[in-house]
Amino acid sequence: MRLGLLGPEGTFSEMAAKKWRKDAELVFFDDMELAAMAVDEGRVDESIVAIENSVEGPVGVIHDRLLDVKSPIVGEVVIPIRQCLMARPDASEIKVILSHPQGLGQCRKYIREHYPNAEIRSTGSTAHAARLAQEFPEMAAIGCSASAEKYHLKVLAEGIQDRTANYTRFLVIGKNLPAPTGQDKTSLAVYLDRDRPGALYEFLGEFATRGINMTRIESRPSKLTLGDYRFFIDVEGHCQDKVLGEALHALKDRTSKLKVLGSYPVADKV
Amino acid sequence: MRLGLLGPEGTFSEMAAKKWRKDAELVFFDDMELAAMAVDEGRVDESIVAIENSVEGPVGVIHDRLLDVKSPIVGEVVIPIRQCLMARPDASEIKVILSHPQGLGQCRKYIREHYPNAEIRSTGSTAHAARLAQEFPEMAAIGCSASAEKYHLKVLAEGIQDRTANYTRFLVIGKNLPAPTGQDKTSLAVYLDRDRPGALYEFLGEFATRGINMTRIESRPSKLTLGDYRFFIDVEGHCQDKVLGEALHALKDRTSKLKVLGSYPVADKV
Repeated sequence: MRLGLLGPEGTFSEMAAKKWRKDAELVFFDDMELAAMAVDEGRVDESIVAIENSVEGPVGVIHDRLLDVKSPIVGEVVIPIRQCLMARPDASEIKVILSHPQGLGQCRKYIREHYPNAEIRSTGSTAHAARLAQEFPEMAAIGCSASAEKYHLKVLAEGIQDRTANYTRFLVIGKNLPAPTGQDKTSLAVYLDRDRPGALYEFLGEFATRGINMTRIESRPSKLTLGDYRFFIDVEGHCQDKVLGEALHALKDRTSKLKVLGSYPVADKV
Repeated sequence: MRLGLLGPEGTFSEMAAKKWRKDAELVFFDDMELAAMAVDEGRVDESIVAIENSVEGPVGVIHDRLLDVKSPIVGEVVIPIRQCLMARPDASEIKVILSHPQGLGQCRKYIREHYPNAEIRSTGSTAHAARLAQEFPEMAAIGCSASAEKYHLKVLAEGIQDRTANYTRFLVIGKNLPAPTGQDKTSLAVYLDRDRPGALYEFLGEFATRGINMTRIESRPSKLTLGDYRFFIDVEGHCQDKVLGEALHALKDRTSKLKVLGSYPVADKV
């Protein structure tokens, strides 16, 4: 089992991957989007990608990418995020703070209070940040403690995220839709006619009137023009469940632009 | 009239500010959030802040900040975005590309194709990026052409955003709610009970059943726990209009966590 994820070693993605499958062979990609496409391209059996954080919000680029991915979402993983500030043991004055944009966003208040004059730089992953901090003594990285070990850095401060309760949800992309378990979630993407008032209301009505709970709705720009959006919606249930199946059937008749991204077991609470 | 905005000079915010008021005295802030709070703090008469881009999506930090801002939204401005790559006239090989995260996100494809090995750094504004590129010949900045002039940089490439149709919408925060014009928009923030299925559906129903068009819905994490969201909703009409007023009244009875952020004339199409 080859499992694709954002690299290098020492990212939160690696933590999530190990929670998902202890024994998988990890295949690191330089870029989240590449990891998301890797199952379609036959390079891995599954991929794991971050989709949202409880403080900083959605990972926009992965939402956009899911529209192109043909392989289904087969699972979700939620991990607690504890951000650390780390630098070389011989680091002197910290002039630059590095992290993935999500890491920087989650520690905005901490950075402003403790390093008001530092230059802020974003990197492709928190582990990339740690790797740079290993090279330059005037730089500190924000990321997970595993990075500090991996890159021989000293942890200067721990749990520096602005909110203690900080979780990231990851999606697993795989080859085959899992069978219903009775505790499932289904992810959808839909493009509605924006010039028809009430289009979203009617769409949601197919779920609400059937007692189907919506756990998430996220809008993303269609990229065609300002004020034009796609919606990413998670509902409780499996697309092969009778009631949800009926709702999806009714919606597919109504709009040709509905994509079922996958149905998968709900992650354990963390 | 003192108008607050993200600085330094040469940002897209400055373009938007000049479109909003030609004759205002511009007051530059280092940080968008500071600009958003400046009316409340009596430091300016109005502030202008970016709220969403047609390609890269919402400016999350401004949404979160609007919950605390007491002054109303009094207007909106939409400007076309044409991103330029710029560097010192004596620049040699470009090793670092700098911009605001929105600028980097809007030119993701261009950067990957033309500068696959460059280090990507995010800055507080596109003008901050230009200022750094002025100092270091191995760095290039992505931003508006006004920055190139202002910081004596050479434009290496123009219109490098991944989508030609690229617009940013700005909100103006002011002191007094403008009177209805007949062509208005109202912005709301609401926190719904997530454990009640259909809560969002019922909320939207108060608009849909009255024929009120919703032009935008954006979810943001409540930051309390994963899967818990606030919604930012724009609807057509002014909160002092009879029909919209009735809908808001019905909704306020239903939830105590509804905030009317402002009512303002719809921006001219660009």
